Amino acid sequence: MALSAKRFAVTLEDPSPTAANLARDLGAGALPGTGPAIEPAVVVVAAPPDVAADVVADALGRWEHAVVTDVASVKESVLVGVLGSGAEATRYVGSHPMVGRVRSGVAASRGDLFHGRAWVVVPHRTSRPDAVVRVRQLAAAVGAAVRIMSAREHDAAVAAVLHVPQLASSIVAASLHDRPDEAVALAGQGLRDVTRLAECDPRLWTQILSGNAAAARDVLRDCSDRLDAVLTALDTLIDRGGEDSLGALSTVLEAGNAGCARIPGKHGAAPTAYREVSVVVPDEPGAIARLLTQIGAAGINVEDLHLEHGHGRPFGIAVVSVVPAAAEPLRGALTNLSWRILD
Amino acid sequence: MALSAKRFAVTLEDPSPTAANLARDLGAGALPGTGPAIEPAVVVVAAPPDVAADVVADALGRWEHAVVTDVASVKESVLVGVLGSGAEATRYVGSHPMVGRVRSGVAASRGDLFHGRAWVVVPHRTSRPDAVVRVRQLAAAVGAAVRIMSAREHDAAVAAVLHVPQLASSIVAASLHDRPDEAVALAGQGLRDVTRLAECDPRLWTQILSGNAAAARDVLRDCSDRLDAVLTALDTLIDRGGEDSLGALSTVLEAGNAGCARIPGKHGAAPTAYREVSVVVPDEPGAIARLLTQIGAAGINVEDLHLEHGHGRPFGIAVVSVVPAAAEPLRGALTNLSWRILD
Repeated sequence: MALSAKRFAVTLEDPSPTAANLARDLGAGALPGTGPAIEPAVVVVAAPPDVAADVVADALGRWEHAVVTDVASVKESVLVGVLGSGAEATRYVGSHPMVGRVRSGVAASRGDLFHGRAWVVVPHRTSRPDAVVRVRQLAAAVGAAVRIMSAREHDAAVAAVLHVPQLASSIVAASLHDRPDEAVALAGQGLRDVTRLAECDPRLWTQILSGNAAAARDVLRDCSDRLDAVLTALDTLIDRGGEDSLGALSTVLEAGNAGCARIPGKHGAAPTAYREVSVVVPDEPGAIARLLTQIGAAGINVEDLHLEHGHGRPFGIAVVSVVPAAAEPLRGALTNLSWRILD
Repeated sequence: MALSAKRFAVTLEDPSPTAANLARDLGAGALPGTGPAIEPAVVVVAAPPDVAADVVADALGRWEHAVVTDVASVKESVLVGVLGSGAEATRYVGSHPMVGRVRSGVAASRGDLFHGRAWVVVPHRTSRPDAVVRVRQLAAAVGAAVRIMSAREHDAAVAAVLHVPQLASSIVAASLHDRPDEAVALAGQGLRDVTRLAECDPRLWTQILSGNAAAARDVLRDCSDRLDAVLTALDTLIDRGGEDSLGALSTVLEAGNAGCARIPGKHGAAPTAYREVSVVVPDEPGAIARLLTQIGAAGINVEDLHLEHGHGRPFGIAVVSVVPAAAEPLRGALTNLSWRILD
């Protein structure tokens, strides 16, 4: 969808004709014609990690000149598979767009998913430079920010930012199993956030985790050590009372604060692709509409809007998300119209 | 703020005059006058768990007839403290509104925070029935749904839905500590969700966790057992390869699916207080404004708005959140105006 919107000629193939047809209907590209196939410049393999290497090798054999990339979320095991396949691996450059939704498949697709997000490009020792350039161009064309990493660096990074958070989410959700209904009924936003990833596809994630076993184990051991420290502190507190063990609890919580502070853009809920402008609005019907009418009249597209307002206050705050280039024009237009902007 | 909006007479006290003044300015209630104090019907103690029992006991001694409740997030340790204080505990009924924000304090307050959320009321063996009724009325007055539990049931429930998710979030965030900047820069929405709670106040949470040590330990041991099973599976996979260990990974992920499915309202991101109406809108400047202008003209207040739209599609979806009573009028009004509503 993103490439077709940029006027690239995209041909779609999928083992499921239903999925391929739906992708075509959503504007993602064309199905292969009945005539002789035209060799593509780039083949993008989107397949589960345990079969990605085979599909890449197949594409390298099928097209003599095409650059082939894959978007599997583990890179070293795919690379080892491709190098071991005997295919012409100089035309292979792995990659991993760091985006996704909990639900997968064509029906969950969005053409703007890559906008402003990281796309890791993973050249290997024998990748041809022009092949690396092609894959970088592909990522840039859909609005992503290219990052170059080795397969090993990539896998260690995603272990920490994707795979261990996934497992932690599943483990916390699993611990609800033995609780009575009345207890689970008390679930609030915190539990929902922590367990959002736990609604994953277990088959796909078993493959992802086993494809990145060593890197995931390193980060998990770190978590396990901290969990043991908390359990020991709680045991001590329960058995002997006293304040000695509070330090160990506090240490883990403070380390969590410090880790959070390292996450870029953590303060602010919008995806990194958008910038937020906060505007003070009267808390009354029609006020938000007036604001948005004026933003629309200024030719600015609102990507998202979040309202903060409470009963008993005469005003609320509208947090307007726009693409970065529109943030300053928006601030200027609203200031001219006497809206109060918060910094 | 919620009680004042319902025309209850609220008197504010706080050790910090700044906090008390700000609360008054935000419309939460009045500061104590200079004349003789009027005995309140209900005293609500909002204090950290390690001092809550003392403040409750003090209030029971200071007012001869008032019902006293506290809103600390652990209940058994507060109850034990109150019963041991020698104060007239028959007028004490613990409680815990199951709401909150990551940031605390008067500046983060909202009058509609309790609307549609659970408020656990925790009578003890010697609570006077009329005192229990008063506290139930208090919770109902601010729009909360009352749940009755014993202190022990409450503490076991919050260990699973609040305290262990908090620790898991902190532990995952802490594991980012040793990662290079390039790795942490790959953080996406999943990591942000899992670590949102980790931006907590370590001092407050050390108190909360130590105040609920036994119940938290039970749930944490469950998590620790599953984490050990994953580590063993990864060790086996790395050392010997083979498919034997995949079953253990899959079991944990499936248990996570099952746990998630038990969380009420998990499918749907809005707080339970609001109902969502999804409307198809053209993806062009001004369309959302037109929609909101018409909603405002119908006298309906929009509580939140989320837009789903992608480049390459001619339309988007506006998810409009309103209070439950406004959902049907909104659907009717929009249908009459020829907007397309999604079910």
